[in-house]
Amino acid sequence: MIDPPDGYGVRDDVRLDDVEAVRTLVAGTGYFNDDEVRIAAELVEERLARGAPSGYEFVLLDAADGSLAGYSCWGPIDGTACSYDLFWIAVRDDLRGAGLGRWLLRATEDRIAERGGGRVYAETSGRAQYASTRAFYERCGYLREAELTDFYGPGDAKVFYVKEIADRPDA
Amino acid sequence: MIDPPDGYGVRDDVRLDDVEAVRTLVAGTGYFNDDEVRIAAELVEERLARGAPSGYEFVLLDAADGSLAGYSCWGPIDGTACSYDLFWIAVRDDLRGAGLGRWLLRATEDRIAERGGGRVYAETSGRAQYASTRAFYERCGYLREAELTDFYGPGDAKVFYVKEIADRPDA
Repeated sequence: MIDPPDGYGVRDDVRLDDVEAVRTLVAGTGYFNDDEVRIAAELVEERLARGAPSGYEFVLLDAADGSLAGYSCWGPIDGTACSYDLFWIAVRDDLRGAGLGRWLLRATEDRIAERGGGRVYAETSGRAQYASTRAFYERCGYLREAELTDFYGPGDAKVFYVKEIADRPDA
Repeated sequence: MIDPPDGYGVRDDVRLDDVEAVRTLVAGTGYFNDDEVRIAAELVEERLARGAPSGYEFVLLDAADGSLAGYSCWGPIDGTACSYDLFWIAVRDDLRGAGLGRWLLRATEDRIAERGGGRVYAETSGRAQYASTRAFYERCGYLREAELTDFYGPGDAKVFYVKEIADRPDA
């Protein structure tokens, strides 16, 4: 496992106060609508309620003051041999640009590789607003593999990114 | 709503005995592995346990003797404007070739259109074994829109089919 960035702590277990911390963090990025903010918080609640069988795993990064700086939510894709979903990744708005997202993604891939995962899928929107999200995945070695037109709504495609991690040269 | 095929009855509500009926039916088709059979039965359990908030809706076709002849499982896709997933569609092995699958798909699309749904997504495998499944969706007006290589496992792609139903000329 890679060390967390200087001044940050890493956790894999969600706590009750993460429900609100995740909701506030995700809403504060300006990238997600009300429905998405609700879903992000629900994934934390699902994990708290059902534990590992929920299928939702987390990597959480705490700032020095104990507040949530960013997190990822990921899990195995049911019915696949070794494919994993990156359900969510977000960094607090005032901490963007410091490489925390890249660290979170790398830490998530490490955990997936440790469990024998071979492929990580990340889905995002094709809208102009998400150009920086798509560029982020591409910088991190993800391949834009497929697209579903108008999936989220008219003019709002779903874009699938994938990274093979089974034999990562950088692992 | 279209009438069920002659000699069959249609239900939208799942019952406790559908858990086993679905498990047996899905296993008996020979198209699904143990994991998939388990998941098919779990979707019925989820619906029974959580009701509509489970997100799983059903169309069930009963034979004249009361046994389950086929069913579909569908639901809205969270975070989308009007996209729906066809999670499952299966017909009992000894009743194949009588158009029950086509009827179930049409009945499912009717229900989705009634709720204001605009797009129906169906996912299947790209393996040779599923050629008849893919041909079925294509005959029913579904477009093969995207593909994820090795998604289910090595050499086993996920194929996405979509049908726009908002302004169906045949509705």
